[in-house]
Amino acid sequence: MSGRGKFISLEGGEGVGKSTQVKALAAALRQRGIALVETREPGGSDGAEKIRELLLTGDDGRWSARAEALLFAAARADHAEKTIRPAIEAGTWVLCDRFVDSSLAYQGGALDLGIAEVRAVNQFAIGELFPDRTLVLALAEGGARARARDNEDSDRIGGRPAGYHQRVDLAFRQIAAEEPGRVRIVDASGSPDEVTRRLLDQLEDLLP
Amino acid sequence: MSGRGKFISLEGGEGVGKSTQVKALAAALRQRGIALVETREPGGSDGAEKIRELLLTGDDGRWSARAEALLFAAARADHAEKTIRPAIEAGTWVLCDRFVDSSLAYQGGALDLGIAEVRAVNQFAIGELFPDRTLVLALAEGGARARARDNEDSDRIGGRPAGYHQRVDLAFRQIAAEEPGRVRIVDASGSPDEVTRRLLDQLEDLLP
Repeated sequence: MSGRGKFISLEGGEGVGKSTQVKALAAALRQRGIALVETREPGGSDGAEKIRELLLTGDDGRWSARAEALLFAAARADHAEKTIRPAIEAGTWVLCDRFVDSSLAYQGGALDLGIAEVRAVNQFAIGELFPDRTLVLALAEGGARARARDNEDSDRIGGRPAGYHQRVDLAFRQIAAEEPGRVRIVDASGSPDEVTRRLLDQLEDLLP
Repeated sequence: MSGRGKFISLEGGEGVGKSTQVKALAAALRQRGIALVETREPGGSDGAEKIRELLLTGDDGRWSARAEALLFAAARADHAEKTIRPAIEAGTWVLCDRFVDSSLAYQGGALDLGIAEVRAVNQFAIGELFPDRTLVLALAEGGARARARDNEDSDRIGGRPAGYHQRVDLAFRQIAAEEPGRVRIVDASGSPDEVTRRLLDQLEDLLP
């Protein structure tokens, strides 16, 4: 192991099988001999987990879009400084379940704050600590909606209506179009093994 | 009462008698027949008070400067939307004990994040809802330090060392120089009544 570890984030709307794929991708990377830290947002450090409680509980109207975006950015600043940066600098890879692009898509796109405006606030939070590669799991519209309806443990944000989640998906596609080097849309249909292989294909140039 | 209420904030470092002057200024404005809401930061709305707990308790190293600035901005977004804007739009004046300029001075100036950078994050939080007038209580350096030493109920931020609080004072003076129309430095020496009169003098053009 030498040099900095790579920083990978996995993104996607509700019902695309993201939790399953985080575990499968982590296992596949470790099989290749990569030392890996798995983490998730919001949370991933002591302070950020406290902020997570404020974000994911209570009524949907508890926070305005702007307060919500700033709370995510505050949690991310803490997570980046206390967990992600030390790991990467020690040469360990970091695989993060959601990161900055969730804020761009959920608050910037779907809540209409503007992707560029939310990106600026997050640059204040994390500086240059954007992922080396961001993989966005996506399904054709009908599939994602069908799966989302089955989602039984929705929190304050996951429980928003279908139109909101369609805007999230659109925003992820816009972000991928703007940053094609970093952000890749990955087809989430088919068997879990097939999806994991597609994710690995999109990391090929980063693998040792 | 007609039209929008005015929004006044009172600022100042540790040991300048700000708490006393908030009460005295509120009483003096009410004596002039002005309907007034008194509020304070961090806090001033249900959500912001939750964030206040995270900000003012725990070790000084609990939050990085960036996370701290973003938490203040998140609390401010909530406070502005839930408490300040509705009052002003109803024609009521708002007197706020600390507001955006505390973030500019404490995190932007004294913690070296940059006044302009912290101002940008706060513009995201509150849009155009900057105070109509900001009064900064200030003492000659020696006086402020002597009073600060007597401050017995310091919290996570108030308890920082003297050099930090000197940088806060310098930053307030810089902000006042940049925005002389909105931000006024007011001499905090002398009797409480004298100081209150000086504050009122700086509001003369806004009074009905």
